[in-house]
Amino acid sequence: MYLTQPLHKARRECPQGIFSIHGDRRQSNETFVSRVELLAGGLRGLGLVPGARVGMLAHNSDRFLEYIYATLWAGGVLNPVNTRWSAREIAYSLDDSDTQILIVDDSFAPMVETLRALCNVPLTIIRLDKTPVAEAVDYETLIAETQPLADEIRQGTDLAAILYTGGTTGAPKGVMLSHGNLVADALALTAAADHGKDAPGLHIAPLFHVGGLAAVWQFALRRAPQVTTSHYDPGEALRLIEREAIGDIFVVPVMLRWLVDHPDIATRDLSSLRSIRYGAAPMDITLLRRAMDVFPQAGFLQVYGQTECAPVVTTLAPQDHVADPDAAQMRSAGRPISTAEIKIVNETGKEVAQGMVGEIVVRGPTVMLGYWNKPEETQAALKDGWMHTGDAGRFDENGFLYVVDRVKDMIISGGENVYSIEVENVLSKYPGVSLCAVIGVPDAEWGERVHAAILPNEGVLLSPEVLDAHCRSQIAGYKVPRSYEFVSEMPLSAAGKIVKKDLRAQYLAAIKQDA
Amino acid sequence: MYLTQPLHKARRECPQGIFSIHGDRRQSNETFVSRVELLAGGLRGLGLVPGARVGMLAHNSDRFLEYIYATLWAGGVLNPVNTRWSAREIAYSLDDSDTQILIVDDSFAPMVETLRALCNVPLTIIRLDKTPVAEAVDYETLIAETQPLADEIRQGTDLAAILYTGGTTGAPKGVMLSHGNLVADALALTAAADHGKDAPGLHIAPLFHVGGLAAVWQFALRRAPQVTTSHYDPGEALRLIEREAIGDIFVVPVMLRWLVDHPDIATRDLSSLRSIRYGAAPMDITLLRRAMDVFPQAGFLQVYGQTECAPVVTTLAPQDHVADPDAAQMRSAGRPISTAEIKIVNETGKEVAQGMVGEIVVRGPTVMLGYWNKPEETQAALKDGWMHTGDAGRFDENGFLYVVDRVKDMIISGGENVYSIEVENVLSKYPGVSLCAVIGVPDAEWGERVHAAILPNEGVLLSPEVLDAHCRSQIAGYKVPRSYEFVSEMPLSAAGKIVKKDLRAQYLAAIKQDA
Repeated sequence: MYLTQPLHKARRECPQGIFSIHGDRRQSNETFVSRVELLAGGLRGLGLVPGARVGMLAHNSDRFLEYIYATLWAGGVLNPVNTRWSAREIAYSLDDSDTQILIVDDSFAPMVETLRALCNVPLTIIRLDKTPVAEAVDYETLIAETQPLADEIRQGTDLAAILYTGGTTGAPKGVMLSHGNLVADALALTAAADHGKDAPGLHIAPLFHVGGLAAVWQFALRRAPQVTTSHYDPGEALRLIEREAIGDIFVVPVMLRWLVDHPDIATRDLSSLRSIRYGAAPMDITLLRRAMDVFPQAGFLQVYGQTECAPVVTTLAPQDHVADPDAAQMRSAGRPISTAEIKIVNETGKEVAQGMVGEIVVRGPTVMLGYWNKPEETQAALKDGWMHTGDAGRFDENGFLYVVDRVKDMIISGGENVYSIEVENVLSKYPGVSLCAVIGVPDAEWGERVHAAILPNEGVLLSPEVLDAHCRSQIAGYKVPRSYEFVSEMPLSAAGKIVKKDLRAQYLAAIKQDA
Repeated sequence: MYLTQPLHKARRECPQGIFSIHGDRRQSNETFVSRVELLAGGLRGLGLVPGARVGMLAHNSDRFLEYIYATLWAGGVLNPVNTRWSAREIAYSLDDSDTQILIVDDSFAPMVETLRALCNVPLTIIRLDKTPVAEAVDYETLIAETQPLADEIRQGTDLAAILYTGGTTGAPKGVMLSHGNLVADALALTAAADHGKDAPGLHIAPLFHVGGLAAVWQFALRRAPQVTTSHYDPGEALRLIEREAIGDIFVVPVMLRWLVDHPDIATRDLSSLRSIRYGAAPMDITLLRRAMDVFPQAGFLQVYGQTECAPVVTTLAPQDHVADPDAAQMRSAGRPISTAEIKIVNETGKEVAQGMVGEIVVRGPTVMLGYWNKPEETQAALKDGWMHTGDAGRFDENGFLYVVDRVKDMIISGGENVYSIEVENVLSKYPGVSLCAVIGVPDAEWGERVHAAILPNEGVLLSPEVLDAHCRSQIAGYKVPRSYEFVSEMPLSAAGKIVKKDLRAQYLAAIKQDA
């Protein structure tokens, strides 16, 4: 199983079919694969040997797709750089993975000099657009002045990508995913639920993120033309869904909110959309129900996973998105996909009794090869082939997995364990709550104390009193937040997750100022 | 990727869920897996080491499923024996593959002594039912008096099954399929089209046939309870579809005919059926359209492939089953599945121009490891990783594959190539033709001559004159049959294919008698 196989198929089966659409640029299968062969030849000319890394620091476009496929075609390994990171963080990932070739677009060309200064590795820069960059190779010149390269056709166990995890705690780690990992994920996810078939798929999530990247393989497996847009703009996304008759999208919850809140939602023809896949962050159930009303013809598929699992571990299938808002399964992450075996274990690695909470560990063909150059962290995460996710969860008797918390986000208050997601689920049900996050903050008496940050809907006024009464009616007293802060904006990661460490830092800074 | 993974998942995720249904016997996931662990322990006690073969000579049942999983659990290799074969043919396959352990049910217990006399390998017989067999181990006693074995957890490249091909020409060959081959096929086929999700799947095709066996992995991947019935009886199949609310079936065309012709078709509630997968033999388009009317809520998925490809190579998707009976694609085998790369090559192995006819060759993760103990045949079939199917075909410009004939079934008459399927497609359209087969027979003048065997519908009288006129109105003169025979029954293989070599033998015997 190798990731470039769909290109061979596309060119043979349907050379004039459309592979990619970016703005008004539509590339046929034949054109796209020819450019991949040439770009692969160009990369080889710049010294890319099989197994070596190539980075991309750019917004989404069909050129990003060319980079992905040409790197793999030449036998190389992807390092698609997180565009929201600082230059220092990016330089860390380039040095750590020994990425010597980096493609940049206009938006990031100005960062090149800083990166060169920060990096220990010598960087060969390929310039995608027009902004001049010193000693850079022009992307189109590279393609024009080279010979096509034959596909190296990698094995399933060969390394395909090093993806740096968000680094919410500690130094970022390079997750090593193989060709086999990523093909297995794409097959299993495509098999998991009805989808848009060969209708075009729209990339909304950034392609450097594992969720966006995984969609590339899914679309390719089912011959869906790949539609890209450089920035996430909900109005533009709605326009593209109508214009290209998009069959599938993958969104993080905050993107879905922007989509359903957009004024054009009522006037665009969105009937082509067959599947809306969402994940990477907990979904507010009220938002989900609104979206289900807005897109009645689309199946909603929740995906839960992590980069280390390439990435999907469980899915909540469309038929499990039931109308009853109190149905327990709607709070679950769904059931394990066909390739993921899941065990719930305690601190000593022993499997807990059915229904009990413990760490979620995963075994199967999508589990990463390991962390790049981090044998100790790899050994800690991968024990006997089981990926230790760091998330806490439990199974119900029907095999639905409930993710109760990131283990490290668990709040221990007065000896009682509080899983913040449980409190967040309660808070998010209260009318007027747009986003919320529950964290543990230091408390002299109880060790940690439950604290809630709340982003109200525009124009809504909320008080600690009403939220307190609401929570007390739903959950045990020790789980109810002891303090609230009302924010005008939540710190979000590139993947749309609330960055709790930033919330904690804000809280501590505010305390200090008060003292 | 290993085939026993779904058992681990089933027991953990939903121990009380149903794994198998046979008559009134319903086994939970927990019960089924426990029996598999014990049977695996029993097989180990009988000397089964990882990599060794275990045979099964029995009709479909949940015990057949136990055999499949226990053999793989113990690290063994399946040799599910074709029950339609003669004792001599069965003995050949046991000797050829060195299968020393064989499970037999009541129907085949009487054959054991003959097999022992014919076989060179020493046979350990496990008796499934009550018929006494000399020196046989009782199946339930074996399970009762052993210790559970831990899953050997095989690798993707490990051998999982040796499946003997029908042997329509030459000696039967043992097709070696790996765990990875069979998992990839199940994932790709599940991803190819909408399916019955976790509704029960009904095994109609024999489990010793690759089509039946492949359905086991598909059902297991999506947690569908596996319903078995020992003999194919269309009335019983309809009853089971209603009683168990079956979501999926796989049928060969002749089974579908029996199903739609059955009087109960009008009174049974068949609305649960979401997917009807058919293949292994060319489908009569009139029958197909009738079936589409009878099952309007089901998606029809044609599969084309061969044992060597584990087995599926292309699928004609439900949305490609269009209403227009003259739509060309309805005569195609559909498009390559996501894991199959297909090339059309000429006699020298060179790729032909788009749209031209040549041999269909296949590359991808489902392509067999090779033929057991037949390095020369393996080398001839597998060149640079490409499986040479022996079928002739062409691609249209939309990537639909048209299988024009088995290369070896091609009739060469007066220097013109006649692809028998083309003639058969024309004949089968004529009202009153139930089944037909076109073969080449010796002809003094033309080398070979096109001859047609026709099975008319009951009570219908057909004449060579009307068929000749019909054919002449549709195809070139050299393709029109020069002679006809009207038969009361067609020789069918276990897979429901018309056995053309038997038709040829019948024809030659009749000529000899006449002379």
